[in-house]
Amino acid sequence: MKLLQVDSIQSLEEKFATYFASMEKKQEEVELRQVRGRYLAEDILADMDSPSFRRSVVDGYAVRAADTFGVSESIPVFLESLGSVTMGKASTFFIGSGQTAYVPTGGMIPEGADAMVMVEHIDRLGENMVSINRPVAPGAHIMNIGDDFHKRERFFSKGHRVTTKDIGLLAACGMAKIAVYRKPRLSVISTGDELVEPGMKPGPCQIRDINAYAISAYAEELGAEVLDLAIVADDADAYRNAALKAMEKSDMVILSGGSSAGNKDFTAQVVDSLGKPGVVTHGLAIRPGKPTIIGIFTDREEPKTVIGLPGHPLSSIMVFDVVVGTFLRKYYLGNEESPKTIHAKITENIHAGEGRTTYQLVNLSRGEEMEGHSERGWLAQPIRAKSGAIAQLARAHGYVAIPQGSEGVRAGETVEVILIE
Amino acid sequence: MKLLQVDSIQSLEEKFATYFASMEKKQEEVELRQVRGRYLAEDILADMDSPSFRRSVVDGYAVRAADTFGVSESIPVFLESLGSVTMGKASTFFIGSGQTAYVPTGGMIPEGADAMVMVEHIDRLGENMVSINRPVAPGAHIMNIGDDFHKRERFFSKGHRVTTKDIGLLAACGMAKIAVYRKPRLSVISTGDELVEPGMKPGPCQIRDINAYAISAYAEELGAEVLDLAIVADDADAYRNAALKAMEKSDMVILSGGSSAGNKDFTAQVVDSLGKPGVVTHGLAIRPGKPTIIGIFTDREEPKTVIGLPGHPLSSIMVFDVVVGTFLRKYYLGNEESPKTIHAKITENIHAGEGRTTYQLVNLSRGEEMEGHSERGWLAQPIRAKSGAIAQLARAHGYVAIPQGSEGVRAGETVEVILIE
Repeated sequence: MKLLQVDSIQSLEEKFATYFASMEKKQEEVELRQVRGRYLAEDILADMDSPSFRRSVVDGYAVRAADTFGVSESIPVFLESLGSVTMGKASTFFIGSGQTAYVPTGGMIPEGADAMVMVEHIDRLGENMVSINRPVAPGAHIMNIGDDFHKRERFFSKGHRVTTKDIGLLAACGMAKIAVYRKPRLSVISTGDELVEPGMKPGPCQIRDINAYAISAYAEELGAEVLDLAIVADDADAYRNAALKAMEKSDMVILSGGSSAGNKDFTAQVVDSLGKPGVVTHGLAIRPGKPTIIGIFTDREEPKTVIGLPGHPLSSIMVFDVVVGTFLRKYYLGNEESPKTIHAKITENIHAGEGRTTYQLVNLSRGEEMEGHSERGWLAQPIRAKSGAIAQLARAHGYVAIPQGSEGVRAGETVEVILIE
Repeated sequence: MKLLQVDSIQSLEEKFATYFASMEKKQEEVELRQVRGRYLAEDILADMDSPSFRRSVVDGYAVRAADTFGVSESIPVFLESLGSVTMGKASTFFIGSGQTAYVPTGGMIPEGADAMVMVEHIDRLGENMVSINRPVAPGAHIMNIGDDFHKRERFFSKGHRVTTKDIGLLAACGMAKIAVYRKPRLSVISTGDELVEPGMKPGPCQIRDINAYAISAYAEELGAEVLDLAIVADDADAYRNAALKAMEKSDMVILSGGSSAGNKDFTAQVVDSLGKPGVVTHGLAIRPGKPTIIGIFTDREEPKTVIGLPGHPLSSIMVFDVVVGTFLRKYYLGNEESPKTIHAKITENIHAGEGRTTYQLVNLSRGEEMEGHSERGWLAQPIRAKSGAIAQLARAHGYVAIPQGSEGVRAGETVEVILIE
């Protein structure tokens, strides 16, 4: 048995880098309509100027602005109308002094014109004549070539996760198909003789399998593909076989299960037997999350990871976010963005852990909504639940990280809350 | 031609209520793993107490606390160990005075015991004897029946949208299958002779169809199913036929296209020809969004809606969020929650519109990140883009609503930003 390794997050990250830094990320191409939530495997640059032609932003008449200088209600100018510009067609008019042409919103400004007069400020006088009774400045109501954006302007970089509001811009850049990183494939195996599927009524001493479903949801939210959920008995052979089978098709196997000390050794032994190098970390210097086991296997075509998460639902979610999510984003999805955070006033003291980083799950609420708090902004209330309690799960909006060796935080201090959804 | 109707948001909502309040929402059942992002069609209550048995939260020994009172390092107590409780099995031991049994984390506390002693505070003395050298209080390290939650406790109500962090709790409630509201079905038709698909290189005077893709993404983000995107020519027959075909299979048809005044009349006429009652609103007293056309059709098996959105990308997104999203959530998804908002300091004045509500898209940034702003918290910067500009699209995080008749807001004021993603 090798020396039991307890790692800080930093030393764990160095281990990940040793085995995964040189791994090439897999890519695939998806249609624009399927790209929401995916991570870009290419930089997105404008492929042309926008607009690519001089464009009217109003319904009106294209003019030479100079023709309107000095006009008024009492001294209008009369212009010869050459006709109408058609949407989607290049205008063939040339607007000389004393001339004009109708241009709809979005239509092309004819050569020679340098301003638009809104249709509301025009009087039509028969077929080919309009009068204008207020002056316009050169450039009025015109979008020039590149006013919106220029060719080769960079909108998104590799690794960016595509959000809803990015889709219009991707369409504008002509990205009908987009290279994205393939979703990392996960399997989740639960072990514990006390576990039953959510659809079953637990017998005496049994509980429903919560973690596998919760972790799967977080993994999918992150952009992973969860292939399988399975419960296996606390039996080394069954456990090992299930893990080996899951490794065949998955990039990562997550073991979720018993949190007892006995169980931890059991999990470590099973994980270590799956290949080489095997277990690289027997625990993390974080609270909660100490009983996290990490195995890495490079003796296969592609490197695989097996993660034994703590059994407590709230802890397993914390560790998933701090360790697993960061790892998957970096090595499979090319995304090393800092997590989203907001500032909030903490409502209770949080103590620092000795020699380990403390992560405290918090529930966020608006200052006004809580009694005794009148200030605006967010309040972060630590979620303190007995081990195994789950009623608080849905209230966990994020967490506060207290570095080891710090003094902790006091009630009323402003803290940075890392959001978990 | 009927009188041109321009409605406030409130009077539009009354019209919607007239036609849709009695419509029964369609439901379907989905698996727990598919429920993320869906809207519940049933209240979710705990179906049992949790835990449903007295449960240990540590690895250790179950004792009668009274047996440990007064013990110390120098005066330990010796207890007879009756054996080990097995995970997932009801314990058959009865712990009398002077007796104990091993219980793993999550295991059932045997009858007679009222406290747990952590394994770290125990010395094993042979097979059947342990010594304890520190006292424990009654109830120590035990989760009692219902400590986490009680049977019939309500976790989620009908209409709630299921988030990632809800999944664990749904599993705990035994919700292997869950009744949700069926996704409203949308079709999006773009019209405009200047439009080409994003995959094509626009010719002179053409532009790529941005709105259809942007609106689809917002609709899917909201929880709708977008069946089709199609571009049709600015031809009344083609347009009408496309709309009729789309209505067959969709709950709502969104028309996205030209924003010119000519186009608006054209759209209104086409929409009005699709059925009865036809166009109910020819415009909204909002800015942007005035040229929004809404048709309702009750002369079919199910009521249908046809929405003509403004042609400007930023306006169409605003109107989608303010009008369409609210309507779909209320009548199809049973969700009338207020939109998510955050407080932010506005960086520029926003003027109120005369006789209409003004919605100003804003970009949010952290106070620290902007020059000249040292305060914490969020800053909201109005996005001011020429009509048709789209480079700003991806920066639109939300909007500020300025009611008609108000005085607008001044730079530096704290405003409520309605988030759009």
